[in-house]
Amino acid sequence: MIHFDTDYMEGAHPEVMRRLVETNLEQTPGYGCDDYTARAKDLIREACGQPQAAVQFLVGGTQTNATVIDALLARHEGVLGAESAHINVHEAGAIEATGHKVLTLPQYDGKVKAADVEAYIRNFYRDETYEHMVAPGMLYISHPTELGTLYTLHELEDLSRVCREANIPLYMDGARLGYGLAAEGTDVTLKDIARLCDVFYIGGTKVGALFGEAVVAARPERLPHFFSLVKQHGALLAKGRLLGIQFGALFTDGLYQRIGAHAVRLALKLKQAFVEKGYKFHLDSLTNQQFVCLPNETIDRLMREATFELWGPRGETETVVRFVTSWATREEDVDKLIALL
Amino acid sequence: MIHFDTDYMEGAHPEVMRRLVETNLEQTPGYGCDDYTARAKDLIREACGQPQAAVQFLVGGTQTNATVIDALLARHEGVLGAESAHINVHEAGAIEATGHKVLTLPQYDGKVKAADVEAYIRNFYRDETYEHMVAPGMLYISHPTELGTLYTLHELEDLSRVCREANIPLYMDGARLGYGLAAEGTDVTLKDIARLCDVFYIGGTKVGALFGEAVVAARPERLPHFFSLVKQHGALLAKGRLLGIQFGALFTDGLYQRIGAHAVRLALKLKQAFVEKGYKFHLDSLTNQQFVCLPNETIDRLMREATFELWGPRGETETVVRFVTSWATREEDVDKLIALL
Amino acid sequence: MIHFDTDYMEGAHPEVMRRLVETNLEQTPGYGCDDYTARAKDLIREACGQPQAAVQFLVGGTQTNATVIDALLARHEGVLGAESAHINVHEAGAIEATGHKVLTLPQYDGKVKAADVEAYIRNFYRDETYEHMVAPGMLYISHPTELGTLYTLHELEDLSRVCREANIPLYMDGARLGYGLAAEGTDVTLKDIARLCDVFYIGGTKVGALFGEAVVAARPERLPHFFSLVKQHGALLAKGRLLGIQFGALFTDGLYQRIGAHAVRLALKLKQAFVEKGYKFHLDSLTNQQFVCLPNETIDRLMREATFELWGPRGETETVVRFVTSWATREEDVDKLIALL
Amino acid sequence: MIHFDTDYMEGAHPEVMRRLVETNLEQTPGYGCDDYTARAKDLIREACGQPQAAVQFLVGGTQTNATVIDALLARHEGVLGAESAHINVHEAGAIEATGHKVLTLPQYDGKVKAADVEAYIRNFYRDETYEHMVAPGMLYISHPTELGTLYTLHELEDLSRVCREANIPLYMDGARLGYGLAAEGTDVTLKDIARLCDVFYIGGTKVGALFGEAVVAARPERLPHFFSLVKQHGALLAKGRLLGIQFGALFTDGLYQRIGAHAVRLALKLKQAFVEKGYKFHLDSLTNQQFVCLPNETIDRLMREATFELWGPRGETETVVRFVTSWATREEDVDKLIALL
Repeated sequence: MIHFDTDYMEGAHPEVMRRLVETNLEQTPGYGCDDYTARAKDLIREACGQPQAAVQFLVGGTQTNATVIDALLARHEGVLGAESAHINVHEAGAIEATGHKVLTLPQYDGKVKAADVEAYIRNFYRDETYEHMVAPGMLYISHPTELGTLYTLHELEDLSRVCREANIPLYMDGARLGYGLAAEGTDVTLKDIARLCDVFYIGGTKVGALFGEAVVAARPERLPHFFSLVKQHGALLAKGRLLGIQFGALFTDGLYQRIGAHAVRLALKLKQAFVEKGYKFHLDSLTNQQFVCLPNETIDRLMREATFELWGPRGETETVVRFVTSWATREEDVDKLIALL
Repeated sequence: MIHFDTDYMEGAHPEVMRRLVETNLEQTPGYGCDDYTARAKDLIREACGQPQAAVQFLVGGTQTNATVIDALLARHEGVLGAESAHINVHEAGAIEATGHKVLTLPQYDGKVKAADVEAYIRNFYRDETYEHMVAPGMLYISHPTELGTLYTLHELEDLSRVCREANIPLYMDGARLGYGLAAEGTDVTLKDIARLCDVFYIGGTKVGALFGEAVVAARPERLPHFFSLVKQHGALLAKGRLLGIQFGALFTDGLYQRIGAHAVRLALKLKQAFVEKGYKFHLDSLTNQQFVCLPNETIDRLMREATFELWGPRGETETVVRFVTSWATREEDVDKLIALL
Repeated sequence: MIHFDTDYMEGAHPEVMRRLVETNLEQTPGYGCDDYTARAKDLIREACGQPQAAVQFLVGGTQTNATVIDALLARHEGVLGAESAHINVHEAGAIEATGHKVLTLPQYDGKVKAADVEAYIRNFYRDETYEHMVAPGMLYISHPTELGTLYTLHELEDLSRVCREANIPLYMDGARLGYGLAAEGTDVTLKDIARLCDVFYIGGTKVGALFGEAVVAARPERLPHFFSLVKQHGALLAKGRLLGIQFGALFTDGLYQRIGAHAVRLALKLKQAFVEKGYKFHLDSLTNQQFVCLPNETIDRLMREATFELWGPRGETETVVRFVTSWATREEDVDKLIALL
Repeated sequence: MIHFDTDYMEGAHPEVMRRLVETNLEQTPGYGCDDYTARAKDLIREACGQPQAAVQFLVGGTQTNATVIDALLARHEGVLGAESAHINVHEAGAIEATGHKVLTLPQYDGKVKAADVEAYIRNFYRDETYEHMVAPGMLYISHPTELGTLYTLHELEDLSRVCREANIPLYMDGARLGYGLAAEGTDVTLKDIARLCDVFYIGGTKVGALFGEAVVAARPERLPHFFSLVKQHGALLAKGRLLGIQFGALFTDGLYQRIGAHAVRLALKLKQAFVEKGYKFHLDSLTNQQFVCLPNETIDRLMREATFELWGPRGETETVVRFVTSWATREEDVDKLIALL
């Protein structure tokens, strides 16, 4: 059986694992006050081109979203995001549990449009009763989105401009950032993101680490008392160095970039095979998630030898199916899947 | 330099690490829906003598406390605990962030007394205005406590009885449970705890794992919809198997017990040396944390070669100092420290 | 200048005021533990045909919604409601501030459809990842809605059935209930509502009282410890009798019904005049709020002599306008407005 | 039967009631955007000697405390207050429900000491682990306290200085402020309070109004977006003018001062009688609450003709009893009580 369900089916990249094993019995202070963590923060600052940035490591994505959003919003504010945003759909109400509303925007293949953000804010303050409503206090985007799509540099610049004009922070969920940065044809770099977003996180869990997400804020004053908030959210890892060691490995010798590129290359190889076989796509993704429309009988046949996610019916006889590659996907498995098509 | 600061300075026990490495590139479903996790739950149920128990793995202690307490309390209720309880002092307000008050009881070397719990509840309901006050909705204890002390079986039975008579759950924070179970002379077993507490957790972070805590509820209906609450609290690990694999290793061939005993043996060796040198103790601990009163000049001398925690001044010339051993402490380091005294 | 902005522009009905003045210097216990409150509760139980019902008085609508919803939901649950629901739009995030998500349903002139509720719940539990999502834990409706529309008895029965089959409570926001009960042609009585809803409130603020809303639950066990939650929400009035006295007056000799009918009669008189003048309606309302499409020049002209609310543009040259009558509206003012049309 | 239970047993002062009746059928905009409210705010600003102050009316005390404290604190902060503080004991966890911990200080007849506040803050930041603890983010005091005691001007200046040095706001709960300002021998004026506190409220509920509390902040920027927070807390009265009219009456022609003085005069007359009869006092109060130690048999006898609150046993044969006067207390009732002693 070959698996294309998701990008967190394996442990960590062998190089990450090697570093964890190598340092296993060393003794360091807890909570990220160790040299491995300090070094990893420096590597990330350098990769982001933001030597003054605040970097804080957390364990998982939902936790990171809830903690950052809670830190960025005042009590009367909510977070703008696409209807399909992970925070709106798949985080069990973690944002609302901190007291904040998710204010939804139309989504276009998982993305939001700067014009919609602008209009939302403009209409909000034009409404005479706006003080009775939840104020838009920040914008949440994901890159790649939950649907594998990417913002262009131009789109990102527009979102950033709109947010800065409205004086609200722009926050990017980068759970799969490594696959976005390595996407074919993307014109968005890590430095662009660090420059255009007020806060964002670099996903480790889905891109080579056992777990871990690196929150980056170019201007540290955006996240005052963040350490205490991380603790309050139960997101502070006692053995914080585990995060430092992992991100240290990922940001040494371009590992994060390389493994992102590996996953994307295999996803596009698969995509190409689907194209050649004449299958239609649910949407056009250049990253490690591919959404294809398959006849139900093809699906039945494939499921005998491969696992993947059923995304939803498309008419009577077809279903949208998601195939995901990762840093750990073996080319032979992709070839096997292609042979089955 | 030798280190006795705390029990989370190293990574994981080599056997735990070995299992993580061995399984690293296997593919499993996420969120703990894998066979390693299922197997680890069975091992824990067996060790607890509770074949029907619900077991759920979380990542860290503060997170576990906040999630369990939030799950157990109704909105109008608070949690009873010692003034010195970790949830009252060192969790950055994580309990209050979920909307609940910590109702404090006097502490006796970190422990609470059943009579105080009983009196609190009785006085509460005798007060005519009690509906204007936060109702005591559960009891939080830690075993060992933050001060390394332990409940006797008799004390635990009393607390359990008082809670059951008042119809409120008893919850035990077992961050260092392994060192409590291995303490010299304790008459409290894991099975006693599983029987007497409504919910408790078996600490992994401080006892051999990289991270991880195992929440156990003998009667699963005590924690309805707990999975969703874990997700809402940002406490659901994507690669849940990492927890299953680690607890699987810890509960195979008595590893958890053995490494607890190792730490306790070395702590008591150290204790004995302090006794022989004529030092006084801040309190009598039979577990892996030892609190000794040292002359300030002795401390200055020791600090050149060892690290440990200053707990607080005691008069003008002495300070209480904490020395902590763990599963990873090397006997040679203890011997070195003893030689320095 | 004549005013049709809203239904809370005046103080209280003279009969309500008379009773407040009459009892002003009497001495009673606080927090609603007085005989006036007890008597008012009985009158409401009787009017509802629910002799066992729990009745609790609160001060205002947003406060009542937040307190009741917080009381009815478990932590992992959200509240289903129309996109246009007051709790979703105009309560400044009061529901989310208690930790709960508002789960939106399509709205049809402010109402929700039983089929949509049913589909939402069915689809939710069919989704394999539903434990990662906010569970639908109750249904919120308003009657009349924010748009003045009403459920039919048949629709209400359907909603009630769907909720009971799904085992979630049905809660009705009755801020303007008096105007709904008095609407021309409605087949829904107070007794129907009390029977079909698990919890609802009878609005006083907009229907004759200075302030005050009466929460009713036919089965008191639906709202355990509600008094403490009311206190926790800052919704407990020290001089609780003020609420009892007012509702006592409103539910004596059919006052609540009579003043509701008065407002509706004048609203329909106004409606009839609009019809006769050939104006179109934004939607068909049988209650005290009328939404008419007026040419912008007509609006400019009217605004010189009357106040009302601009609801939103309709095309280039027309605007939807809201006219509201109340228990206090004078027939001469309605006649004046009609004369201006 | 004569009543000395509490100071909220009657409705409103006749002059306040007269103004409510007089304006009852006038039409005004809602939510406090009316002229009566604007005028009342001006009167209060003038009485406080703070022409730029923000003034916002809320309905009740617990609601006001929760809303103000929520507005003043950042998420990682808690509120310092006496162990006996109303927010710590009798508000059903309203503060914690907004996510904040109450950090307790020793109480001395209901008061806190500047030295204790200073020490708390100093020790907090000296603790190396302070980022794991709830930061002291503001100070809550009440004046008069729950025990009827008062701060001296010197004490208040000290508290204010300590808070300003620590850069945390000082907030005063003035539920019974009118009785404090009128106390015999007090050297604290309303202007002092407005100058020394960052935020405070002038209590109406217990001092002449049907209900209502006036929050005052000399520097409005202390309470940004406060209107939305008031709404979010369910504390925004639809017919906001009711608050404006009441406070307008109270702050016209010195009514608030006069009725405060009336209550205090009668309380001290009662006190003098107790002194003359040789009874001991639980503490020395110069305001409208008197706490006397009475033999249990005296209490039994008094209870046949008067009501009052039993505060708690004092030894075997005595009980501390609270007698409360108010703006509404009749001198003849006080004389009757004295005759009974």
